[in-house]
Amino acid sequence: MKVTIIGLGLIGGSMAIALRKSGMATSLLGIDLSPAHAAKAVQLGIVDRMISENELSQSDLVIISIPVDACCVLLPTVLNLISPTAVVMDMGSTKNLICKTIAAHPNRQQFVAAHPIAGTEFSGPEAAFFGLFEGKTNIVCERGKSSSYALGVAQKVFDSVGLKTIFMEPEEHDKHVAYVSHLSHVSSFLLGQTVLDIENDEKNIFDLAGSGFASTVRLAKSSPDMWAPIFEQNAEYLSQALLEYIMHLQKFQYFLQKRDTKELHKIMTKANDIKRILKN
Amino acid sequence: MKVTIIGLGLIGGSMAIALRKSGMATSLLGIDLSPAHAAKAVQLGIVDRMISENELSQSDLVIISIPVDACCVLLPTVLNLISPTAVVMDMGSTKNLICKTIAAHPNRQQFVAAHPIAGTEFSGPEAAFFGLFEGKTNIVCERGKSSSYALGVAQKVFDSVGLKTIFMEPEEHDKHVAYVSHLSHVSSFLLGQTVLDIENDEKNIFDLAGSGFASTVRLAKSSPDMWAPIFEQNAEYLSQALLEYIMHLQKFQYFLQKRDTKELHKIMTKANDIKRILKN
Repeated sequence: MKVTIIGLGLIGGSMAIALRKSGMATSLLGIDLSPAHAAKAVQLGIVDRMISENELSQSDLVIISIPVDACCVLLPTVLNLISPTAVVMDMGSTKNLICKTIAAHPNRQQFVAAHPIAGTEFSGPEAAFFGLFEGKTNIVCERGKSSSYALGVAQKVFDSVGLKTIFMEPEEHDKHVAYVSHLSHVSSFLLGQTVLDIENDEKNIFDLAGSGFASTVRLAKSSPDMWAPIFEQNAEYLSQALLEYIMHLQKFQYFLQKRDTKELHKIMTKANDIKRILKN
Repeated sequence: MKVTIIGLGLIGGSMAIALRKSGMATSLLGIDLSPAHAAKAVQLGIVDRMISENELSQSDLVIISIPVDACCVLLPTVLNLISPTAVVMDMGSTKNLICKTIAAHPNRQQFVAAHPIAGTEFSGPEAAFFGLFEGKTNIVCERGKSSSYALGVAQKVFDSVGLKTIFMEPEEHDKHVAYVSHLSHVSSFLLGQTVLDIENDEKNIFDLAGSGFASTVRLAKSSPDMWAPIFEQNAEYLSQALLEYIMHLQKFQYFLQKRDTKELHKIMTKANDIKRILKN
């Protein structure tokens, strides 16, 4: 199968590596706006060569893994250019706008809207690695709007890289990821910012940072180019999640200021219930 | 050296294991309020046997690793009971109140106020393991108020378990850890709470939780019995840190609601500077 990856970063690059290893891709082609990323991806052997959009018509499968705003712009063009038997999928972290964008496209049924819940705080082709998707969850939205052929090809791809696929409507998807993914990123970015701010006054503060801080602030290293468009597209749900989070923090701060340790203990005990979900 | 560990949880237990392995402790004795923890610690071989307070006078070194409120109550008694050549140290995450509590104690110079920045989200003797302190930072407060003999013994202990010690005044310590440790715990507890709340309405939301969520919410599993007293003792600095964090979150939410993606991008780019501090 001739596969073109548009966007050779962490996700696209790791997809290419996995598809080559599994034998699904016999030929791997790349498109990337960044000449540096393109050169690196070829040098690392992630793709065989770079192509231009004109060559897209020769691909059996096109995987788009670029920031979600760019994806909304590019996807209609890609659907115009591909052969009638080709399949296109995206990997974006928001699904509502992208699905709306191509809802009326004549080739809509050749597209599968996917979101593999996988990643690290790193980006670019050097961040790509084999095994990123192994055992992770993948969400496919609007399955009814993809042809069964397209869904079949997509399923083979997901299986071959180790993704377990579940199905959801775009609104439901965006709401859920606002809480379990996007909010985590915001909390981490701003925890980092808060501590960097105080560092201006208090030198060597980071000598005291332990593994707990490192863990909660890890996502603050994530790429703003990737995340700003995600937050924009999911602004409504994320804003709501953020307000709820702020409300909880304010309540905690209120009890803290009152030295109401009993109430703080109660809040933490309730939060301990997260053990039920996170086994490790 | 005859060592007594008061509080056989994650920290006390790991200290016992490390001191036995290094050969520093020839005899390891334990005191714990919880009969279950006491039995477990003996069963696991963490300590040789449990003792009562009356036997404290026979110890060369007493390490107190219990919640910081209990430590403030117990430490004066321990300083009353020990032999004139014994050394006592605590392991608490706040240092201001404990130092004030025993400031006028006649045996103050036998005490070393320590805080090894090490831990996991787990607690109890089963959570203890060899290597917890290896390469971690340890803060000693009010070094001038400990005898040089006590500091020497303490330094040998820290060296033998792999801790790198720095010195700080209690107020400075408490302020710094409010930002780089305690705030992380609050942000994590309440992130957990926010997502658990929404789960009441949205079933299966956790199917979508990836490693990013797991990382930011990990500390929400921490023990409320240990953390409630820490937050109480550090309420002033933590409250201030929390207000700054909330202010950053509100600002972000404002730009999000305005769909001012440029401003969000700018905030995240600044937060990326955390890479400078966290190398991995």
